[in-house]
Amino acid sequence: MTAYDRLTARFARIATIREAASILNWDTEVIMPPGAGDARADQAAVLSSLSHGMLVEPAAADDLADAEAAPPADPWQAANLRLMRHEHTRAVALPAALVEATARASSLCEQAWRDARKQSDFAAVAPLLREVVDRTRDTAQALAPVLGLSPYDALMDDFQPGVTAADVAPVFARYGTFLADALPRAEAAQAARPAPRPVQGHFPEAAQARFCRSLSERMGLDFRQARLDSSAHPFSGGTPTDQRITTRYDEADVAQALYAVIHETGHALYETGLPAAWRRQPVGHAAGMAAHESQSLIVEMQACRSDAFLSWLGPALHAAFGGEAAVWAPTNLASLWRKVARSFIRVEADEMTYPAHVALRFTLEQAMIAGDLAIADLPGAWNGLMRERLGIVPPDDARGCLQDIHWYAGLIGYFPSYTLGAMAAAQLMAAARRDTPGLDEALAQGDFAPLFGWLRPKVHAQGALRGFNDLLRHATGKPLDSADFEAHLTRRYLG
Amino acid sequence: MTAYDRLTARFARIATIREAASILNWDTEVIMPPGAGDARADQAAVLSSLSHGMLVEPAAADDLADAEAAPPADPWQAANLRLMRHEHTRAVALPAALVEATARASSLCEQAWRDARKQSDFAAVAPLLREVVDRTRDTAQALAPVLGLSPYDALMDDFQPGVTAADVAPVFARYGTFLADALPRAEAAQAARPAPRPVQGHFPEAAQARFCRSLSERMGLDFRQARLDSSAHPFSGGTPTDQRITTRYDEADVAQALYAVIHETGHALYETGLPAAWRRQPVGHAAGMAAHESQSLIVEMQACRSDAFLSWLGPALHAAFGGEAAVWAPTNLASLWRKVARSFIRVEADEMTYPAHVALRFTLEQAMIAGDLAIADLPGAWNGLMRERLGIVPPDDARGCLQDIHWYAGLIGYFPSYTLGAMAAAQLMAAARRDTPGLDEALAQGDFAPLFGWLRPKVHAQGALRGFNDLLRHATGKPLDSADFEAHLTRRYLG
Repeated sequence: MTAYDRLTARFARIATIREAASILNWDTEVIMPPGAGDARADQAAVLSSLSHGMLVEPAAADDLADAEAAPPADPWQAANLRLMRHEHTRAVALPAALVEATARASSLCEQAWRDARKQSDFAAVAPLLREVVDRTRDTAQALAPVLGLSPYDALMDDFQPGVTAADVAPVFARYGTFLADALPRAEAAQAARPAPRPVQGHFPEAAQARFCRSLSERMGLDFRQARLDSSAHPFSGGTPTDQRITTRYDEADVAQALYAVIHETGHALYETGLPAAWRRQPVGHAAGMAAHESQSLIVEMQACRSDAFLSWLGPALHAAFGGEAAVWAPTNLASLWRKVARSFIRVEADEMTYPAHVALRFTLEQAMIAGDLAIADLPGAWNGLMRERLGIVPPDDARGCLQDIHWYAGLIGYFPSYTLGAMAAAQLMAAARRDTPGLDEALAQGDFAPLFGWLRPKVHAQGALRGFNDLLRHATGKPLDSADFEAHLTRRYLG
Repeated sequence: MTAYDRLTARFARIATIREAASILNWDTEVIMPPGAGDARADQAAVLSSLSHGMLVEPAAADDLADAEAAPPADPWQAANLRLMRHEHTRAVALPAALVEATARASSLCEQAWRDARKQSDFAAVAPLLREVVDRTRDTAQALAPVLGLSPYDALMDDFQPGVTAADVAPVFARYGTFLADALPRAEAAQAARPAPRPVQGHFPEAAQARFCRSLSERMGLDFRQARLDSSAHPFSGGTPTDQRITTRYDEADVAQALYAVIHETGHALYETGLPAAWRRQPVGHAAGMAAHESQSLIVEMQACRSDAFLSWLGPALHAAFGGEAAVWAPTNLASLWRKVARSFIRVEADEMTYPAHVALRFTLEQAMIAGDLAIADLPGAWNGLMRERLGIVPPDDARGCLQDIHWYAGLIGYFPSYTLGAMAAAQLMAAARRDTPGLDEALAQGDFAPLFGWLRPKVHAQGALRGFNDLLRHATGKPLDSADFEAHLTRRYLG
């Protein structure tokens, strides 16, 4: 056995432990009785410490050094080895005590945040958030020198390797300029059109679930290796051969569950399309969270809100749920489901204003990690930026800096992935349309085969062979920029 | 930290890994998409090898030797240390290659058995069963010398430590003599009574599930730390604060789901009643599979088929499901649900003939492990014993030696636990009645508090402090014998 072979065995074992942890995490969110949380936290902690322990064992470092002395010629093997080294470097840079302190702080803060958000009481959670931010700053400072990155970039690197704040800042700045001009115009165009007719009625959960599952299957998800369930917050998880997607149902509304299922199916199809030959190897995983988000958003925002797809979806919903044909008319659905609005809540925001919500968080979290923003000043800073960028001020912190779980759960550096993903989705869709005649005509028949016929080889089957920008360059001919995204918004909202 | 403290930390970690594995196993049986089986098998194998690895690490042996040099005075700690040593002894006695070969043989055989049973084709699975039995015999022979037991006893020891074939054989022999006399008399008494009126109608699954859950809660299961789901075969699993019980529903019949839930609730209450102070320590676990079965059967067979409880259950079922009062009359339910019959299938057998099914398997599996019974001769031997002991011959192997999963899944030495559990349940019930005035009057009100008020301290809270016979002696004043079981059957069926 060569050193490289020993490493692949080690990383396969680590990945298998993480698969078990991923199924347990799904169980926690969907199935677990409420009183089992403490024991589950122990189980998650032990699995995490076991996989971490396998990473930092001296034999792993020895094998990495040996393998790197004679690096593999095959590009997949070479990329795999680089990714192993990267993961190892991150793991050994963090003292176990810091990892544990961060996990404990995040767990306590996240629990307190649930109540604090309900009560809109930022003060109640502020000391715990300070602890999370302090420990995350320690983490960032421990990682920065070994990764050769700034502290904030070292945090981003965990979610979307290879993308830095310096990459993101100009993209966001350009988008800010675009939005300042485009948003009032989109609002004016919208106001000039007759108001859409609302979708009203009772849509039983079971019927919605059948429709959602059937659409997910039509998109390509194979339910012999997947499940659809409901949970408080839609998510996707599991393993490539055991994809678990969830949604939530509102019996007065079909759009919420439906678009959540479309979004999560996009994530799931990425996982099922990863290169099977590299299963459980670093290079066989997804190319990062921005890449992942591009795969959920290309279906949620690009394909399934397009005129073409709505022309299939409207009649399909009418056949499934009955009611007046005029309500299900594709143009009416387009007005309803492509509405632009300045709003407080990121997860409810439309695709035009969504990046503004993310950019605000990007600004604030950099300041917190740099130590330039005291936790006590966060609500004021948040509201100031909301006023400056969207012209509205949250009436309370529940609709302001308490709305998202991320920071309270220790996820700092994650937010940019959402908007990078949205922009990448637009760029990939533009390239897919260019390369694939008949793509929209197929969507108008509810046929996703041409879209995924392009995405599978260009994105899914690439695994983590390339970094985010390289993946985009390879698939679309250029690294990420916001041009296709802006063109898309212009066409859809200002056309 | 003392050596003993290090051992408790090690075993807590091992137990936590096993908790994760237990939840994953529940997921496999209840939730998992069918195409995820291969990946799940890998996950289970990795978790199992991690916990095994922690057991056989040299440091564990060193700590055991050090701790035993100055054994703890506290009886719980002393028992804990003995159980740690026992588990360690078993683990180090088995070469990893044998463990792996046995797991692989069992996995292949179990999969083939599913089809073989459907086709009633013993020949199709016989070579795979031979491999399982051969590897199990290797296991038995590796364990026997280090445990100071015969090979078959070394297998039994894994399921019910401290109980040997020499303990079981006379109990089964005495029971055989009892049955030869009692069964024809019970059949005659039954034939002399008017036939019961069958429970007929449509019992929607959701209504059955509500009734079952409510009964389970009434028995004492706290659903903040438990779930009730459906699966192909009822089982219980999970962890003490996350009990997962399952049943299966037949909408033409209420008894099947109901008594399965009662049975599994008995198992679950044992787990939830284990000593919390010893959670995740060997001494904090259940006292073995026969002890576990005693806790399911004391409710399923003793309490919940008693005249007293049926006098509460009949009206409760009538209120829940409607229909004719005469059908739900307690005496009618007693005739229906306490029917004695010579039958082919163990899991459908009544409590009087059930031990004969187990005794037959006990005879045959001892012969297989001793090498005295060739696999090819198993169907003939099975049918010969069925004729000799119950006077009936299975029309095919599906209703004969192919009916149970156990041997095909590598579970040899397990069967006696079922009957030891049934006998222990009768012995415990007799003692509980003796010690607890008003126990049956309470059951007649659907009140389980007196029964569990006795079982919790006498059995559940004892954990694995005592071996099976010692547990019974402590709770009932004598080690296991079949006298109370026979007295129970005589009263119920020959009275």
